[in-house]
Amino acid sequence: MELLKERILKDGTVRPGQILKVDSFLNHQMDIDLINEIGKEFYRRFEGQKITKIMTIEASGIGIACITAQYFHVPVVFAKKAQSKNLDGDLYTTKVQSYTHGKVYDVIVSRKFLSPEDHILLIDDFLANGCALLGLIDIVKSSGATLEGAGIVIEKGFQPGGQAIRDMGIHLESLAIIDSMTEDSLTFR
Amino acid sequence: MELLKERILKDGTVRPGQILKVDSFLNHQMDIDLINEIGKEFYRRFEGQKITKIMTIEASGIGIACITAQYFHVPVVFAKKAQSKNLDGDLYTTKVQSYTHGKVYDVIVSRKFLSPEDHILLIDDFLANGCALLGLIDIVKSSGATLEGAGIVIEKGFQPGGQAIRDMGIHLESLAIIDSMTEDSLTFR
Repeated sequence: MELLKERILKDGTVRPGQILKVDSFLNHQMDIDLINEIGKEFYRRFEGQKITKIMTIEASGIGIACITAQYFHVPVVFAKKAQSKNLDGDLYTTKVQSYTHGKVYDVIVSRKFLSPEDHILLIDDFLANGCALLGLIDIVKSSGATLEGAGIVIEKGFQPGGQAIRDMGIHLESLAIIDSMTEDSLTFR
Repeated sequence: MELLKERILKDGTVRPGQILKVDSFLNHQMDIDLINEIGKEFYRRFEGQKITKIMTIEASGIGIACITAQYFHVPVVFAKKAQSKNLDGDLYTTKVQSYTHGKVYDVIVSRKFLSPEDHILLIDDFLANGCALLGLIDIVKSSGATLEGAGIVIEKGFQPGGQAIRDMGIHLESLAIIDSMTEDSLTFR
């Protein structure tokens, strides 16, 4: 998606440790006009597939998922990051490791909101090692729902998550895939 | 807002401890058509005021803020809940007590995204004791931006947050104000 790539080049900054900061338009401040174009592009890429719900994970996926859901006319379900003490029996749960913070956390979705009749599109802002997305895939499988695909705004193509998910046969659409980046240069696939 | 009140009566459930569960349409699963109507209603109530940014707090405010921002044609900034070790000098910070979990957490916003030229509309899903909203107000004041008002989807009118914020002279618009609720009945103001 050219508009997105141009924006990453214009306003993104690369920090030590292969961190890409896009917090001026994507995941702290959000440029709603751009996110609308992102939502339209996800719709174009998954149009024709039967989708009954969009699922994401808090926090930065939620806004993108909600704007995108307007084009599909379906509800959004967002998975919550929870501490174990809050869990009860009516939940799908999985564990996700955060590479940024090094912690393992529980991810939960109420069983009420996923059923075997659902066809799920996963949406998230970033895909790097794939831990969060693999957690969501695990929850969809537990529910018996059909996973129709995953839409990612920015994939770090030099980290293994994207390949792992494509190798599972999942329809993955990343709007910008970064193959390499340093503080001075950034190359898209 | 009648559509919202009807939905609360139809799909909301009251749990012991004055907990109102609206997770089937507002803050876990999100009915995007309803949230669009909520966004339009916020626009109607704040139309004519100069608004340059919508600000909310993760996680459940983000989707509502993003949908609402489409009507105002402004960006969204969402405040993050952070642990102190993640803080650095380029942030506005405040402390917020969670009445649900009893914990005090830091709320942060990058200084890049709030300036004295900004006119801010705060948006959130719930207002009860007002701790989260007072934290956001504190951040807006620190930045020198102008606070134009706060839009809340559901206010628990029997808890003190709404009155405290109105007493500060802030333009507060709550789309549904609950004056009392038990497991059998729920009364709107």
